[in-house]
Amino acid sequence: MTTTSSKTTEAPATGESAEATETAVPTTAPASTRPPHAAGSSHRTTGSAYPTTGSAHDATDNAHDDNASDHGYVHGYSPAEARRLGNQADTLAELLHAGTAYPAGSRVLEAGCGVGAQTVHLLASSPGAELTAADLSADSLDQARARVAAQAPDARVTWHHGDLHELPFADASFDHLFVCFVLEHLADPSAALTALRRVLRPGGTITVIEGDHGSTLFHPDSAAGRATVGQLVHLQAAAGGDALLGRRLHPLLAGAGFRDVAVRPLTVSVDGSRPALVEGFTRRTFIAMVESVRADALAAGLTTAAAFDRGIADLRRAGEEGGTFHYTFFKAVGVNP
Amino acid sequence: MTTTSSKTTEAPATGESAEATETAVPTTAPASTRPPHAAGSSHRTTGSAYPTTGSAHDATDNAHDDNASDHGYVHGYSPAEARRLGNQADTLAELLHAGTAYPAGSRVLEAGCGVGAQTVHLLASSPGAELTAADLSADSLDQARARVAAQAPDARVTWHHGDLHELPFADASFDHLFVCFVLEHLADPSAALTALRRVLRPGGTITVIEGDHGSTLFHPDSAAGRATVGQLVHLQAAAGGDALLGRRLHPLLAGAGFRDVAVRPLTVSVDGSRPALVEGFTRRTFIAMVESVRADALAAGLTTAAAFDRGIADLRRAGEEGGTFHYTFFKAVGVNP
Repeated sequence: MTTTSSKTTEAPATGESAEATETAVPTTAPASTRPPHAAGSSHRTTGSAYPTTGSAHDATDNAHDDNASDHGYVHGYSPAEARRLGNQADTLAELLHAGTAYPAGSRVLEAGCGVGAQTVHLLASSPGAELTAADLSADSLDQARARVAAQAPDARVTWHHGDLHELPFADASFDHLFVCFVLEHLADPSAALTALRRVLRPGGTITVIEGDHGSTLFHPDSAAGRATVGQLVHLQAAAGGDALLGRRLHPLLAGAGFRDVAVRPLTVSVDGSRPALVEGFTRRTFIAMVESVRADALAAGLTTAAAFDRGIADLRRAGEEGGTFHYTFFKAVGVNP
Repeated sequence: MTTTSSKTTEAPATGESAEATETAVPTTAPASTRPPHAAGSSHRTTGSAYPTTGSAHDATDNAHDDNASDHGYVHGYSPAEARRLGNQADTLAELLHAGTAYPAGSRVLEAGCGVGAQTVHLLASSPGAELTAADLSADSLDQARARVAAQAPDARVTWHHGDLHELPFADASFDHLFVCFVLEHLADPSAALTALRRVLRPGGTITVIEGDHGSTLFHPDSAAGRATVGQLVHLQAAAGGDALLGRRLHPLLAGAGFRDVAVRPLTVSVDGSRPALVEGFTRRTFIAMVESVRADALAAGLTTAAAFDRGIADLRRAGEEGGTFHYTFFKAVGVNP
């Protein structure tokens, strides 16, 4: 971990309560490879009632958990999931990372870096920052290291293997925290935020990005499609997470002691005018994510194969001629008092 | 109707297919009084199976329909509804009207101006435009006239009483069309768009704004609250409308022959950091809208009084300490080939 000090603070996203802001260096993140849902410090519960096996194609390479916990990464750790995370991150990089750029020398912790899908975009937006990337899964960290080596060979990253609830860093070790698609997989996101705030210096910022599957809208609408998304929400809840967490980022951060919390909705809106998003988001990010829980949904008795497959088929229609698909992420920025 | 000619065209909102754009004059609309859901050319079906009676407080002043049709304005025509529309428009003016400003002298038709809730904001953003405002309800037009006289006394507006499906204007009479919270109340929005395109000159633009009640997210989440919103959706569908229309604006406009259609999601995100929106949007716009169909929902046997009231009470929690509320509008711009 680097110790270069910095006084720069990221501006709250909506600017409605920016009095604590010192400097903001907005940068457009170039598209490379960096995935959401790379929930780092959460992971699949071995032997869970809802084991996540990734997509059927890669189920054999799916047992890399190196630690047990009562949290569950519902999407699993398969190569297919790592690819999905990469697709998601690349497709969404500009949307999610816009406005997030840390000054050279600032000490940044990415808590829950997973396979490094977001890490490479963080590095692209903040090339001079001193980044520490932490994750509970050693296997994910290995993948993150490889991804950064391939895509940002000159980047300096300190890798930390451990639980974000029990980070060994001294109080106020970091100027900024970045937490993307992690809280949704934790049993107690408030406790995680409180633990993270300890290592953030006073005046430093936290940036949290989460989705909310309840925001999913598609045309043609379909009860079967909605039910299939609901089964993913159910499985994630059963694994101790919350796929509807995005909507409550403000009270979560405020409750954990951050102030000047500002939350911005970031909606991905996909229709025939955006063919790249149809492929990159509707199909390879969202539908792939839902489809990956098929075996778990069947094993849990939540649905039948026919009903699940009909739901997926209906979701796919949103990516066809005349279809539309919409999903809202929430990006929160708060300041440590 | 004015006949001043103009060659200026509003830019497609997302700019992804702006080749036909000639000029755009973005202006921030000052907040005055102009309401969404002022569905103009649609109105309540007299004697409908789902009569809309407005809020219980104003049910006595609720029979101003001057025309029959097979469309239904599910929210009714009460003074309370007119106030709600005004609150909604004022609260959302900046969000919805940003980027919509028409050059001086351009011929603009607001189709379905209702009580003028959006009209006054259009006038504020485009003070030099030659505006024609049309609505099917003579009573609503009277209210619109009064609103404009009070809030924009110097504005020149040509008022037209009639059905937007049968406008008496010559082909290509307008440079721009503005249609806000109207299509959601029509039995055949495609037919309406086709009829409107006839009076738009080649190269002219249409701007359409619609909500989508399926986008409603709130915290704390509540099945009762969601069910209550669903009852409004059901009633609107029974009246021939579609409260989930926002998501399908792109195929609707493209299907009606507009090109370079660009749709932007506009999400209102309300939490403790935005107390004005808690009052102006969550309570006085959204919850008031849902609450106004209470009698109809009960009459239609969709719910019980206790269940409906519990849903409203749960929705109100979203406006209390620690609560959040989110809703997405969709704004589409298309060009007439």
